[in-house]
Amino acid sequence: MKRTLGTCYYPEHWPRDIWEEDAARMVASGLTWVRIGEFAWKRIEPEPDVFDWGWLDDAIEVLGAAGLKIILGTPTATPPRWMLDRHPDMLAVDAQGHPRKFGSRRHYCFSHDGYRQDCRRIVTHLADRYGRNPHIAAWQTDNEYGCHDTILSWSDAARRAFRDWLAQRYQSTEALNRAWGNVFWSMEYDSFDEIDLPNLTVTEPNPAHVQAFRRFSSDQVVRFNRVQTEILRARTDAPLLHNYMGRETGFDHFDVGADFDIATWDSYPLGFLEDRVGATPERQRRYARQGDPDFQAFHHDLYRAVGHGRWWVIEQQPGPVNWAPYNPSPLPGMVRLWTWEAFAHGAEAVCYFRWRQAPFAQEQLHSGLLRPDSEAAPGLAEARQVADELLDAPEVAPLQATVALVFDYDALWSWEVQPQGRGLSGFDLLLDTYRGLRRLGISVDILPPSADFDGYRAILAPGLVRMSDALKERLASLGAALLLGPRSAARDADFTIPVPLPPALPGLDVTVSRLETLRPDMPVPLTGGGHAKHWLEELEGTAETVLATETGAPVAMRRGATTYLGAWLDEAAMIRFVADWLAEAGVETMTLPEDIRIRDTATERFWFNHGPETVETEVGPLPPAGVLRQPL
Amino acid sequence: MKRTLGTCYYPEHWPRDIWEEDAARMVASGLTWVRIGEFAWKRIEPEPDVFDWGWLDDAIEVLGAAGLKIILGTPTATPPRWMLDRHPDMLAVDAQGHPRKFGSRRHYCFSHDGYRQDCRRIVTHLADRYGRNPHIAAWQTDNEYGCHDTILSWSDAARRAFRDWLAQRYQSTEALNRAWGNVFWSMEYDSFDEIDLPNLTVTEPNPAHVQAFRRFSSDQVVRFNRVQTEILRARTDAPLLHNYMGRETGFDHFDVGADFDIATWDSYPLGFLEDRVGATPERQRRYARQGDPDFQAFHHDLYRAVGHGRWWVIEQQPGPVNWAPYNPSPLPGMVRLWTWEAFAHGAEAVCYFRWRQAPFAQEQLHSGLLRPDSEAAPGLAEARQVADELLDAPEVAPLQATVALVFDYDALWSWEVQPQGRGLSGFDLLLDTYRGLRRLGISVDILPPSADFDGYRAILAPGLVRMSDALKERLASLGAALLLGPRSAARDADFTIPVPLPPALPGLDVTVSRLETLRPDMPVPLTGGGHAKHWLEELEGTAETVLATETGAPVAMRRGATTYLGAWLDEAAMIRFVADWLAEAGVETMTLPEDIRIRDTATERFWFNHGPETVETEVGPLPPAGVLRQPL
Amino acid sequence: MKRTLGTCYYPEHWPRDIWEEDAARMVASGLTWVRIGEFAWKRIEPEPDVFDWGWLDDAIEVLGAAGLKIILGTPTATPPRWMLDRHPDMLAVDAQGHPRKFGSRRHYCFSHDGYRQDCRRIVTHLADRYGRNPHIAAWQTDNEYGCHDTILSWSDAARRAFRDWLAQRYQSTEALNRAWGNVFWSMEYDSFDEIDLPNLTVTEPNPAHVQAFRRFSSDQVVRFNRVQTEILRARTDAPLLHNYMGRETGFDHFDVGADFDIATWDSYPLGFLEDRVGATPERQRRYARQGDPDFQAFHHDLYRAVGHGRWWVIEQQPGPVNWAPYNPSPLPGMVRLWTWEAFAHGAEAVCYFRWRQAPFAQEQLHSGLLRPDSEAAPGLAEARQVADELLDAPEVAPLQATVALVFDYDALWSWEVQPQGRGLSGFDLLLDTYRGLRRLGISVDILPPSADFDGYRAILAPGLVRMSDALKERLASLGAALLLGPRSAARDADFTIPVPLPPALPGLDVTVSRLETLRPDMPVPLTGGGHAKHWLEELEGTAETVLATETGAPVAMRRGATTYLGAWLDEAAMIRFVADWLAEAGVETMTLPEDIRIRDTATERFWFNHGPETVETEVGPLPPAGVLRQPL
Repeated sequence: MKRTLGTCYYPEHWPRDIWEEDAARMVASGLTWVRIGEFAWKRIEPEPDVFDWGWLDDAIEVLGAAGLKIILGTPTATPPRWMLDRHPDMLAVDAQGHPRKFGSRRHYCFSHDGYRQDCRRIVTHLADRYGRNPHIAAWQTDNEYGCHDTILSWSDAARRAFRDWLAQRYQSTEALNRAWGNVFWSMEYDSFDEIDLPNLTVTEPNPAHVQAFRRFSSDQVVRFNRVQTEILRARTDAPLLHNYMGRETGFDHFDVGADFDIATWDSYPLGFLEDRVGATPERQRRYARQGDPDFQAFHHDLYRAVGHGRWWVIEQQPGPVNWAPYNPSPLPGMVRLWTWEAFAHGAEAVCYFRWRQAPFAQEQLHSGLLRPDSEAAPGLAEARQVADELLDAPEVAPLQATVALVFDYDALWSWEVQPQGRGLSGFDLLLDTYRGLRRLGISVDILPPSADFDGYRAILAPGLVRMSDALKERLASLGAALLLGPRSAARDADFTIPVPLPPALPGLDVTVSRLETLRPDMPVPLTGGGHAKHWLEELEGTAETVLATETGAPVAMRRGATTYLGAWLDEAAMIRFVADWLAEAGVETMTLPEDIRIRDTATERFWFNHGPETVETEVGPLPPAGVLRQPL
Repeated sequence: MKRTLGTCYYPEHWPRDIWEEDAARMVASGLTWVRIGEFAWKRIEPEPDVFDWGWLDDAIEVLGAAGLKIILGTPTATPPRWMLDRHPDMLAVDAQGHPRKFGSRRHYCFSHDGYRQDCRRIVTHLADRYGRNPHIAAWQTDNEYGCHDTILSWSDAARRAFRDWLAQRYQSTEALNRAWGNVFWSMEYDSFDEIDLPNLTVTEPNPAHVQAFRRFSSDQVVRFNRVQTEILRARTDAPLLHNYMGRETGFDHFDVGADFDIATWDSYPLGFLEDRVGATPERQRRYARQGDPDFQAFHHDLYRAVGHGRWWVIEQQPGPVNWAPYNPSPLPGMVRLWTWEAFAHGAEAVCYFRWRQAPFAQEQLHSGLLRPDSEAAPGLAEARQVADELLDAPEVAPLQATVALVFDYDALWSWEVQPQGRGLSGFDLLLDTYRGLRRLGISVDILPPSADFDGYRAILAPGLVRMSDALKERLASLGAALLLGPRSAARDADFTIPVPLPPALPGLDVTVSRLETLRPDMPVPLTGGGHAKHWLEELEGTAETVLATETGAPVAMRRGATTYLGAWLDEAAMIRFVADWLAEAGVETMTLPEDIRIRDTATERFWFNHGPETVETEVGPLPPAGVLRQPL
Repeated sequence: MKRTLGTCYYPEHWPRDIWEEDAARMVASGLTWVRIGEFAWKRIEPEPDVFDWGWLDDAIEVLGAAGLKIILGTPTATPPRWMLDRHPDMLAVDAQGHPRKFGSRRHYCFSHDGYRQDCRRIVTHLADRYGRNPHIAAWQTDNEYGCHDTILSWSDAARRAFRDWLAQRYQSTEALNRAWGNVFWSMEYDSFDEIDLPNLTVTEPNPAHVQAFRRFSSDQVVRFNRVQTEILRARTDAPLLHNYMGRETGFDHFDVGADFDIATWDSYPLGFLEDRVGATPERQRRYARQGDPDFQAFHHDLYRAVGHGRWWVIEQQPGPVNWAPYNPSPLPGMVRLWTWEAFAHGAEAVCYFRWRQAPFAQEQLHSGLLRPDSEAAPGLAEARQVADELLDAPEVAPLQATVALVFDYDALWSWEVQPQGRGLSGFDLLLDTYRGLRRLGISVDILPPSADFDGYRAILAPGLVRMSDALKERLASLGAALLLGPRSAARDADFTIPVPLPPALPGLDVTVSRLETLRPDMPVPLTGGGHAKHWLEELEGTAETVLATETGAPVAMRRGATTYLGAWLDEAAMIRFVADWLAEAGVETMTLPEDIRIRDTATERFWFNHGPETVETEVGPLPPAGVLRQPL
């Protein structure tokens, strides 16, 4: 399959008489894909049950006739204002109890039955009409599930659905009370109807209660989305996809992804750096025009797994955006770098968001490939350069990595439910671990716990709070080097500390006898350099100590192929420790300069310079935003 | 007209038997004016429609008989508790939906018809009774419109009124939808009754929606106030005024000011420094006992324009206040300096707030000229010193400045609606520009866009987001040197980016092709020194580049008399760039020491030392808090 | 009386078959006391009026038979879920108007009559059943009044009760209006039913209004608690107690304590350091594993007074906790140090919270003496070491100190109601003063204003905002050295500034003529070293100046035995000034190293090292966490 480019287009925003020219310019710019329709419900169904298909028929014909492949979006992220007359209680409710009002987007509660029925209706109409249209080459459901903090809703609809969900899961309140330890503060329930959502409690609610609500909320997304994929499956053979966001951990993407053919995501490196990476001020300044060197790559690798190997960037930042705390311009060349980086990680396609900058409404300062006056914006030339470079580039050629990193949404919820130290996040621990691997030149596969880990030489599972016995056994039986912890298997399925105490790994006599969290200004120095930060466990057992504090407390212990790491390592310690561990596992590493990253496909090794200065590398000097493709 | 002094007095707070002595001491202290009545509704009308005029008649007679001129306030900022029984829904509602309760002041919604009717009633009674009273020399309506964040109300009354306002402005929802670009996220309305206030939306509402709400909210203040001025006009010949606050930009003071004869404002230099200037911690420390050297002057110049040339300080801080984060004492001499500074900027009168410190209620730690035990507080001696100095001082003698700075409330709302960078404020850009001019020894007139700019040699209009074609033409036709931007003419009347792209100035081929906002720690160095900070535009066109980044990107471009500046300059760059530009415009400048400011009237040049140390100047050493009057 | 140890135990959390073993291990560990029952309402009364006493009878028998003395808690901090069906409006309401929901603990409003009746009912049942049980050696009411910010409730029940409280206190609204100065902003009331709770006002409410609400809220705790103590008194001879928290100033502990025999408190040195001490980051880092060197001691001395001389630590932190921003492990030895420190301050008993770490619910990461797997946690060995050391230690032997510090809850409310500078707290002023005394080697008694001060050589009363004339006279008549201020007697009983102006102390001609609050970065240097910070008064009068600013302004003035200090001193100035003042009072001092503290009983002088390094002292080197008992 050829690597391809595309863009996102809103014909309803523009005069009819420029559609043909837009389409022609897209093709001339080397674009293959155009995504449309995902915010157009009001134009499709201006009044309840009154449809206006003409403009959409027309737009599809114009774009398709120009040679573009169309991704058609279902418009369920933006129900029209009249929908609220049908369902006044369809709005999500925030944690303080305020309905989240009409006037922007994503103004619905995933648990509202009536709205879900209306989604079924509109998607059925769309699929009936365009399911076999030859120009429609893919379908997107809704838009950015979870964006704007929309997974959790504290509504009456959610409360009712949560009670049902609990009743199905636990069957009896006695079972629930036991599982959650509700005896603790006389919190025992006699009926599922007594159970409320875990907000606005006097002090923190039972973490088991919150974890259950997080799981329920994720399941509600799966259920909501499946209504749409089932309708589409019955009416089209085109691949189905959704556009995920960066650092959106409110729902389990592997669960939702099971109903899709392709995973796509929306990559905004500069917006994310300011808003979601959690970088230090120094790093934010250094990478302000380039984005974090690992954040995008991390999501590429994550969503490749979510997409069962097939994935795209469906929205690629082409210039400054409008929504981060500060919105600088990218360093020249970064749009090209970001595009090639996606291909290096196995993307099939990269689409730029958006074709033309909108002069009105919420995103009027969000760059497009064109300016509002239809002149080319700087991003367009870089996109075109990639299009030219793609002409003789290899096809998509995925390559299984030698190193796997285990990613589990359920574990991330546990970290959020019980961080034990201010702001501690399992996501950050995963990203820090990934960054350490990347600094060592490793190409990584990110996989869910349910994955088949055959063929990996080394598997890392930091922060995997819940591990079933079956998972423990399966990992131990692989023969690969395993690096687990901290916090591995620390809670059972109902958020209780298991006895024997964690991690209770087969064949490894290590017990976490106590744990502490550390102020950011009091990292604990380790022998050999670097520090434990944030999270530090006291380990006991007979396994061999392979990393210790300067005062001699074991920090990592190993027996055979399994190593348990009881701390969150800073970058120096992470690189050193992981390098040694990989060397023992027979995985070759190289220590890359701070700004340089590499990534291998089956046919090429890519080199990227994420820094603002030219860097010397073993393949020669790489300029800022430099991309070097080295055939393998 | 002689420059005069005054104070604010609350006879209802004090025993009847000290009124005469208070009045006599005021006169003996050199005070001319006394303001009374603005919080006394409950004492005037203790029960609905039951009036007690005796005490007020008496107070007016006592004060007037002592030789004082009285400013009588309408009491509509503090409706009595019984008013809520009449109008339970008259309270403003905060953005989270909570009614803002009785128990302090300003507890009303500008849009509530019933309360406005009751204001009409009480003002009519007052004006009927005292409109021709010879002691009443001026009338104040209400008190500090906007203080305590009271312009925006998210009440049902506001919602209904907003819908009416929109219906009148747009006539049809089709027109509104087009103007706002509501097609963007299926936000189109079919009825004005579908439009809600723009709070509590899932993500940011349409900026056009918010800008409209800001304009509406300002208009509601005008409408509310006009009820009172119309009544008063019909019943008195005394001048009408209102006491504006510092950095209150929630309503258009030029619009409200059109109904008044004099603009007055409440100047609290130390409170403002902590609370509203936005100074760095270093500047807050340096000026903690003096206040910002430019903030008061800026408002003096602004409100002079609002008052059509006639203006006062009606509340002058006389010592520590109670409402800022920290409340230090002024440096000895500053009360005198602040008073003379007001006169230097053309004030007709300066009144100290308040006569005697109240021992009870909310402002018990707000200094007066007297202590609660009636002893003189330190401010009184400084006031008396000014009174003595005024005896042989020149009369009020306004002088049109050579340099004008354009101030537009509508533009400030646009900055707030769409800052694009965290905390960016058009007000701060104006203040930074003003500060640069002042550091260069320039006396400035601040004017609205609608002003007559005849006679100015140089006009600066930074951050003027909306510019009509007529305004562009008018400014270009003046012959004066014009310095526009950044962000000039960036939005049309409905908050849409115009095409051709901004600024689209006549005779100046400059286009803002892209813009970015910058983290505070990444200013962009300019050739010749200094930096662009916060906001930086990419300029293209054929005009001459007169300022550029170190990497050669144009930052300011000029053709003929018009210069477009596409950045927010730091202090070093601002002073240097503006000095050069003024030199070209034939305006002489001088670079003043950091703490020194000068200001010219028709008869005098005033020198002020705002610093804590003595400073050498060309007119000799100026001590801390020093004031030097140099005849011209 | 022997010093004893104990623990807190929840039989209902554990299988029946381990109770005997747990009890035996407690005894073998040297523990005397076991507290049970305070969260078990749902297990005692699973349905309304249906009781299950069997398990509790059994638990009491098992524990008592093992030789343990039992403290039985009333379970009113955790009403079962069914209680909400009886009293849907029993929940407290937060300041934003949200009911604080079921799902954790302390979910009740102190003012709710119906809930108070149900508390009366359950306590009566408990007392009837166990009041004469020989194993029950003490009773605890409820749990941690005030924890989780639960004193103030903005509910309808509180509003009704507040109106009644006001009506009883003021008898007429005329009296209330006069006392509060409601004339100020037309805030006068005509009926008590017009008075609302002082939340959600447009700007700050009248401080007199807020102070009244604070007093009312404290009285509601007294009233709520007294229901229980009256029932218990009638049915048991065992001592009654409550477990107070650290830095809980929402209610007057002296008032509540009047109904108890013993004061106990819950001492969590590491949690408090992060959460409540208000230490600088540097101090937080230095003492992260030891806790603040003075914070626990301060509460020991405070609660000794609350308990009329009898007091315990009933919950002692035995390892990391779960609720602070960061939760590190204690330095080895600190659990022992904390225990001995309590005994040094006169504690009768120290109980560790909790026996075994719970694997479920909210506190699953709160250490116990046992781990969840029943293995010994590190704290157990330290507890056992103390138990061994106690075998030949002296009995409890209280000694009246020579120096007293006056602590007044009402004054702390006044500081909170009107801090005048951001975050200024009377509690911090008291703690800073106490710290200064402790750095000088002084053992301190903390006493309420109502105390008998006979026998003290020196009495300090900083920040005592309200002082009756009687108190002024009483203190002046003692002959002891008095150090008063800042802010002494600054408000009358209704929060009005008195005239003559404060402090108006008999025999001392000092007047606070003005006051200011200072930014943290602008302390005012004093002659002789050190600074005034936060709060600085201008003093005038004929008394002798004994401390002045570098510019010569008096900061402290003395006549005879009375000294008035008009500033908040930093640590250097505090130590120097207080040392000189104590020397004049004939009290001997010694300047201790930063980490060392001493405390005297009648028989021993205790030395403690709170630092992470060994410190040389006059009694030899003290290792980290070192405790040295020096016979007197």
